[in-house]
Amino acid sequence: MARILISETSQHINQKVLIAGWVHNVRDHGQLTFLDLRDSSGLLQIVINDQSSADLKEIVKKIGKEWVLEIEGTVLKRDPQTINQDLITGEIEVSPQTINILSESLTPPFPLDSDGSELDEALRLKYRYLDIRRPRLQNIIEKKHKFILAIRNWLDQQGFTEVITPLLTSTSPEGARDFLVPSRIHQGKFFVLPQAPQQFKQLLMVGGINKYFQIAPCARDEDPRADRHAGIFYQIDIEIAFPTIEEIFTTAEQLMKDTYQTVAPQKHIPHLPFPRISYQDALNKYGSDKPDLRFALELVDFTQILKNQSEFNIFNQSAVIKGIIVPQGAAFSKSQIEALEETAKSKGAQGLAYTRVKNKLLDSGIARFLSETLQKKLIQEMSLKEGDLLLFVADQLSVANKSLGQVRNLLGDMLKLKDKNELYFCWVTGFPFYEINDEGKLDFGHNPFSMPKGGRQALDSQDPLSIESYQYDLVLNGYELASGSIRNHEPETLVKAFEILGYSQDMVIKKFGAMYTAFQYGAPPHGGWAIGLDRLLMLLLDEDNIRDVYAFPLSSNGVDLMMGAPSVVDKTQLDDVGLSLKKSS
Amino acid sequence: MARILISETSQHINQKVLIAGWVHNVRDHGQLTFLDLRDSSGLLQIVINDQSSADLKEIVKKIGKEWVLEIEGTVLKRDPQTINQDLITGEIEVSPQTINILSESLTPPFPLDSDGSELDEALRLKYRYLDIRRPRLQNIIEKKHKFILAIRNWLDQQGFTEVITPLLTSTSPEGARDFLVPSRIHQGKFFVLPQAPQQFKQLLMVGGINKYFQIAPCARDEDPRADRHAGIFYQIDIEIAFPTIEEIFTTAEQLMKDTYQTVAPQKHIPHLPFPRISYQDALNKYGSDKPDLRFALELVDFTQILKNQSEFNIFNQSAVIKGIIVPQGAAFSKSQIEALEETAKSKGAQGLAYTRVKNKLLDSGIARFLSETLQKKLIQEMSLKEGDLLLFVADQLSVANKSLGQVRNLLGDMLKLKDKNELYFCWVTGFPFYEINDEGKLDFGHNPFSMPKGGRQALDSQDPLSIESYQYDLVLNGYELASGSIRNHEPETLVKAFEILGYSQDMVIKKFGAMYTAFQYGAPPHGGWAIGLDRLLMLLLDEDNIRDVYAFPLSSNGVDLMMGAPSVVDKTQLDDVGLSLKKSS
Repeated sequence: MARILISETSQHINQKVLIAGWVHNVRDHGQLTFLDLRDSSGLLQIVINDQSSADLKEIVKKIGKEWVLEIEGTVLKRDPQTINQDLITGEIEVSPQTINILSESLTPPFPLDSDGSELDEALRLKYRYLDIRRPRLQNIIEKKHKFILAIRNWLDQQGFTEVITPLLTSTSPEGARDFLVPSRIHQGKFFVLPQAPQQFKQLLMVGGINKYFQIAPCARDEDPRADRHAGIFYQIDIEIAFPTIEEIFTTAEQLMKDTYQTVAPQKHIPHLPFPRISYQDALNKYGSDKPDLRFALELVDFTQILKNQSEFNIFNQSAVIKGIIVPQGAAFSKSQIEALEETAKSKGAQGLAYTRVKNKLLDSGIARFLSETLQKKLIQEMSLKEGDLLLFVADQLSVANKSLGQVRNLLGDMLKLKDKNELYFCWVTGFPFYEINDEGKLDFGHNPFSMPKGGRQALDSQDPLSIESYQYDLVLNGYELASGSIRNHEPETLVKAFEILGYSQDMVIKKFGAMYTAFQYGAPPHGGWAIGLDRLLMLLLDEDNIRDVYAFPLSSNGVDLMMGAPSVVDKTQLDDVGLSLKKSS
Repeated sequence: MARILISETSQHINQKVLIAGWVHNVRDHGQLTFLDLRDSSGLLQIVINDQSSADLKEIVKKIGKEWVLEIEGTVLKRDPQTINQDLITGEIEVSPQTINILSESLTPPFPLDSDGSELDEALRLKYRYLDIRRPRLQNIIEKKHKFILAIRNWLDQQGFTEVITPLLTSTSPEGARDFLVPSRIHQGKFFVLPQAPQQFKQLLMVGGINKYFQIAPCARDEDPRADRHAGIFYQIDIEIAFPTIEEIFTTAEQLMKDTYQTVAPQKHIPHLPFPRISYQDALNKYGSDKPDLRFALELVDFTQILKNQSEFNIFNQSAVIKGIIVPQGAAFSKSQIEALEETAKSKGAQGLAYTRVKNKLLDSGIARFLSETLQKKLIQEMSLKEGDLLLFVADQLSVANKSLGQVRNLLGDMLKLKDKNELYFCWVTGFPFYEINDEGKLDFGHNPFSMPKGGRQALDSQDPLSIESYQYDLVLNGYELASGSIRNHEPETLVKAFEILGYSQDMVIKKFGAMYTAFQYGAPPHGGWAIGLDRLLMLLLDEDNIRDVYAFPLSSNGVDLMMGAPSVVDKTQLDDVGLSLKKSS
């Protein structure tokens, strides 16, 4: 007899079936024992009662949780009063003829009937092969597979070709540290794992591929980050030759629209095409270049109405006064307002002023500094309503924006405005091509391979900080999901873009020689994007821990606790590649 | 106007279209100039004649090969006498209104209108972004994508789940050298790139996944081999829980049957299910454990009929006399027979004796050592025919088999018996679990994780060399394509299998700790296989060079000539990971 899955048993009522799986639970009621058998498709109740053979009764006494059984038995309808609607097999049970013990099990180090989030993660990861038996993780593994396959098929149908690019390559300019792979055949030299297939996909465009994609592993040796899997993560990577900007936007929009339901049919996309917002508008309205648009609470500029209109010096001495009007926020407790203030301060604000609308005037907080006339003017011009809470940051524009952006974000949580089932995508456009970096120096704002708006001419004639880039970020519910651009495919424009930062043509050739040379041989205009697959899956699956999107993740500290990697290697292996360990100082 | 592909132009006769691509060729006939424009979909003829604008005539004079153009023009039917049936656009041409030069090109370092195989490979690889513009490589890239996608969809439909396993892991027991990846966060320790996902896929089975697959990168730091891509290659990797052996065979058979036509519709599979042949029969009949079954020419045992029946001492002193009967081979020239003898000697034979059937007797070669009676007996018992050629090796059985296997292989080439369009798959089964290795020691025959036939009991009671393994190879047209097995999922049987080779339980735990521990917690019986994707693609695409199956291959010497990898790295990068280069001695 051929084994069937547990999910298929209910189609075999009153028939004999062969099933196999793990003992999820044993409930011994004396004359009656229930075994819950689990396979990847579900749970099934096996009943051993007084009519069962002595052999079976004997076997069942030995069996413990997580033992592996093969059972031949008859599928029976349950009594109506014992039907369990929570199970796909809740209307049936199996009366076994034979139970064959395929494997025994020690007592597992943790229970498998919860979602696991209450357990010590290190222990879960050490026994990951047990941890993934729990239905939550089985579901993630299955959904991830279905989602990636749906993405592949969609891109294929749109004329994209998946191309596997090399894992052993040379350094790439993504800005993170490379993982090195010492060469044995060419001792003293090193491959690196790709930080992204950026150069290869651009070379594929030069190579005449019309539309490229890849579910691409990206290796970055960064210090642990909560929102990125240590070591390797995956991107949905595309590039299009001869593209229009619309085509680049539409591809992402239609791809998301046509695939998210594979994983999360209960969710919806409220706006299609995705709204576009400029980088400056995003900062000014939402205090972030990754705005969460599931809720309003836009930042309001109070400078004109409040600066130099009172004796409140903090307002008068600041470049701008910006704030957020929280409808019906007057009911916020003192500790809630303190939490908001802490958040504002964490982003550099001196403080977070507040007041409330009560009886058509302002009340509490900074109300006492503002004249009644000014209070009324504010209420009228801003259309404030009874019960509104006003929050203010008076500071430099950038500090006010950034800190209020963070306050807005916390308000979204406090007011439960973040509907998990709403997928609010938006494009952020118009990023500056250059910016002043943390060291006070002129630097690339984003990808150095993007085309500056205005091209070569803009580089020759404009103030570098005024030049915008053909660069666009895709944001989902406040998370940066993707980054893309129309690339700079003109070799001289590329050299010029680096020259403005003080880099010579020789440096460009040394660092990006293949691409620079390739562009001399007929490079098509091209552009594309890369969507972070892990974060997208987290959002679609409502998962909080990025590691659970991986079957076998590295720990938050970058260690494989199950396999014991990284580990010490034999001296001969180091000799093979001509390396030695430095003495630790 | 939206750009269309060149392959779509013939649906737009007498309409205006926008196309873009590379100048494949310029043919200037004075008043008439033909431009061949190429994109990923094909070639198109652009005509500039005396009615074209002066601007266009001016532009066309400048244009060279591989320049990138955007052309707006009208699709016209060609005169019947100028139709080119070799082109998908051979019945049309485009009369341009505007030609926009998007990129210029230097003269390419090699022509792009051949299949490239006549060129120096190092030069092709240095300029791989140009090399892949040639239609042969565009076709490989596209077909590879379609084939892998077809495989993924087929496996999905059969209930398999693709799971991505880690790229940064610990050493695995595939027997090749590991690529090391030094850890920065944990200095002095190393990750390794996976040689195969063997342990992870087995741990997925323990983790309750029912059917796993992956298009899996495998990293092996081996010296260059002609039939394997340097560094990284890819496998179609599957594993099934609670499998029957039939299920494991059938999955490969049906997968091949249902997908090969995506790439090679002109080919066919002569036998389905694939024939199964035991390891011993394969050696005895075909002199190889990867027999090419597209032709017969089976090895014949002449020992009984010829040993001690003549004065020919070489026959009398050898353990066996085996040979091949080549129908109508009497016409072989001396140099052909010498080539066959060289081949036999290259595999250890002392020589290759021969004779021919002529006038119902034997003629030439060793005929003079055999009496007429013996000659007649041989002709009768072996049903020899006029014009047959007989080839003999008299030696130890293993030498006779191996050398005649190689002779048979060469005969297949000489007689043109290897039909490229015939996909003759077969399974080789019954491999020995243990064998004597090159150093004369008892060792695993293949995968140490296979289940020995007879299980623990066989290990306890049988002569190790008599134990067979649940191991099976899939062979296609003489190439080993896949290897698979039913695994040993019993921890004590695993320990015993290693113990017989003198390894302690501690060693097993140290080397395969995760798997050994995992097997204590309810491991299901499981098994699977991995098919070499690159070799399969080579055979389906009739390609001789495995590197051309990759868009960006490493050279035969393991170097990326385009990107310049591997390369020297900064001392700070080595400091980061706590390593230093050893002085070369």
